[in-house]
Amino acid sequence: MQPSLRLITLLTDFGDRDWFVASMKGVILTINPHATIVDLSHQITPHRIDEAAYVLKSCYREFPEGTIHVVVVDPGVGSARRAIAVKSAGYYFLAPDNGVLSYLFDDEQPVEVREIDQRTFRRASLGHTFDGRDLFAPAAACLTIQQPFAYFGQLIDDCNTFRISTPKWDGGALVGEIVYVDRFGNLISNLTPHHVKEMREVAKRSNALIAIAGHRIQSLVGNYAEGSTTEPSALINSNGTVEVFIKEGSAAQRLKAGCGMEIILS
Amino acid sequence: MQPSLRLITLLTDFGDRDWFVASMKGVILTINPHATIVDLSHQITPHRIDEAAYVLKSCYREFPEGTIHVVVVDPGVGSARRAIAVKSAGYYFLAPDNGVLSYLFDDEQPVEVREIDQRTFRRASLGHTFDGRDLFAPAAACLTIQQPFAYFGQLIDDCNTFRISTPKWDGGALVGEIVYVDRFGNLISNLTPHHVKEMREVAKRSNALIAIAGHRIQSLVGNYAEGSTTEPSALINSNGTVEVFIKEGSAAQRLKAGCGMEIILS
Amino acid sequence: MQPSLRLITLLTDFGDRDWFVASMKGVILTINPHATIVDLSHQITPHRIDEAAYVLKSCYREFPEGTIHVVVVDPGVGSARRAIAVKSAGYYFLAPDNGVLSYLFDDEQPVEVREIDQRTFRRASLGHTFDGRDLFAPAAACLTIQQPFAYFGQLIDDCNTFRISTPKWDGGALVGEIVYVDRFGNLISNLTPHHVKEMREVAKRSNALIAIAGHRIQSLVGNYAEGSTTEPSALINSNGTVEVFIKEGSAAQRLKAGCGMEIILS
Repeated sequence: MQPSLRLITLLTDFGDRDWFVASMKGVILTINPHATIVDLSHQITPHRIDEAAYVLKSCYREFPEGTIHVVVVDPGVGSARRAIAVKSAGYYFLAPDNGVLSYLFDDEQPVEVREIDQRTFRRASLGHTFDGRDLFAPAAACLTIQQPFAYFGQLIDDCNTFRISTPKWDGGALVGEIVYVDRFGNLISNLTPHHVKEMREVAKRSNALIAIAGHRIQSLVGNYAEGSTTEPSALINSNGTVEVFIKEGSAAQRLKAGCGMEIILS
Repeated sequence: MQPSLRLITLLTDFGDRDWFVASMKGVILTINPHATIVDLSHQITPHRIDEAAYVLKSCYREFPEGTIHVVVVDPGVGSARRAIAVKSAGYYFLAPDNGVLSYLFDDEQPVEVREIDQRTFRRASLGHTFDGRDLFAPAAACLTIQQPFAYFGQLIDDCNTFRISTPKWDGGALVGEIVYVDRFGNLISNLTPHHVKEMREVAKRSNALIAIAGHRIQSLVGNYAEGSTTEPSALINSNGTVEVFIKEGSAAQRLKAGCGMEIILS
Repeated sequence: MQPSLRLITLLTDFGDRDWFVASMKGVILTINPHATIVDLSHQITPHRIDEAAYVLKSCYREFPEGTIHVVVVDPGVGSARRAIAVKSAGYYFLAPDNGVLSYLFDDEQPVEVREIDQRTFRRASLGHTFDGRDLFAPAAACLTIQQPFAYFGQLIDDCNTFRISTPKWDGGALVGEIVYVDRFGNLISNLTPHHVKEMREVAKRSNALIAIAGHRIQSLVGNYAEGSTTEPSALINSNGTVEVFIKEGSAAQRLKAGCGMEIILS
């Protein structure tokens, strides 16, 4: 077995105060004491599937091929909602079938989706409220030791995804939106360098004009240090998207902006 | 040596901002670079021994046998309070003798308790305020490499425990209490399915009636998805106890409820 | 290669909600799947270089020799600021050249400083805002597998440091300051037992008198349990400095005190 198949990441909305994350780790290490476990994040806003989806998309490819990414943001736990195992781009994903893996289906990569067989992988337990511990952790640990992926369950082709928002043309302008606000209050949009280039060609200008929350940003800067400490600036961030920021401050607070807010390129 | 004896968990009220947890890990890895360290939680409310005790009880059995659980919620650090090493149910526990291991003594398991010999395990240090680093971390690391448990110190039989609250009959009703509030605002009680069954038999009804904070809950549901988003619902949670919740909301906030609040089964 | 050279610690202001820390870990584990990664802290106040410097100083020596400490508190990311690799006291440090390693230069230890060669270690990426992922993580991982330290880049002798504040004599009093406030609200000063001893000799008294925020503390106690729950007390803490605290409370809140506040020994 290749060593990277021992690597499991956990992405949840469990927070870091209770015993939920530790329970998952204990179950995994009981099945495979040699597994390496990395926390992606446990601070997803409770029940925010879209937020978890964006965090996952932003980092899963940084891990070695074969890594098993386990995502448990799962308001429907205990209901009839299915649990799925997905293989894509050399990575494995285990998650409830609630759309949290939507970005995987937005790539051009082939994606193999299986419904996790609950009779095989579910642990006996009194309650039915903690599939992170009772289903996903055992399944992930099993994948690190021996199980071929096909063993996880039947192939399915109707798993749930949500629509990934993409910028739209409106007259001569391209209307995108803020899709994530990070810890620094930086506003991350769904506009890309490709959109910026396209707009420059349409507008026959050497740079794009960005409008957000009543502010106008004349041009992109190269890094945070070049920004203004009083007015919003914009740059291409490490995800390869347009990001609005205030140097050494919080753009989210200053602009009273959040996810879903329009950002217009013209 | 079995591999699971290399696994150490840490449960503290140190938070995640300062260097306290990292210092403990550094000390452990200096003594045994092959130790695996898992965080149970470091977000216990400062000095809340009961909260740490409940978190520990809720997950220590998920880990492989031989795991060493280190608990440092220790308002009496530096005073004459003893430090203890406990063996129970195949697990090891290191903690100050302040009651934080009380739940271990509530089981029917035999429990072996030793006073940690400070001359053997204490590191030299300038101050006397950080036994997590200077006593418990070295002791835990030593246990992973060679030391027989008896080496830890003398057997004692008078360690400190606090009373675990249990539901009481009051007329025809069973009066329990909320013993933990989790990150989602779910209210976890000390009522179990056994109490619910007992009450059904006494009341000759097919379900139990739950009363909390002026609200009445007619019956248990099976999972969070079946609950109401406006009124409190109840289910048997993953700890096997009755839990009151608001679907996709915080019962703690909505009911202005917290630890110690009465929950009545009738 | 000695095993301790596989140990990497991470100290950042990235928080624990976004994917920043996970991305660094993924990059490291892709290059060296056998690396052990320990979080020092990710809760440094955004852009607070002095805070990160103090956290690092307080725990880096607890780790085994050969440990690689990576510090990414980096408001100047993407600008012309250099990245440096430092060897000191048997440890390695990778950080932006912004003063965050200042305490290393305050010791009497010899310090070897190199400018990290960006052509060798920088990963290709779209944006220029995430050197934690694109420069420091690959450099740290390379150091765990093979690279001699000299390979990191040219020796330099002009790296940036900030002045470490030290207590000053003012008449018959020694004026120090609060340099860190911990999670419990304890006020950590830059006064040491050496200063206390000096003052006792000067004042011909058996103990020192401490003044802070209008309060007077008559003598040092030995541990938190000996303190008062209503008035500030002081002790020598686990860093070997004078610390002001309220027993089971927050001195920072009660005294409305923070970093930079004067603390006077007389």
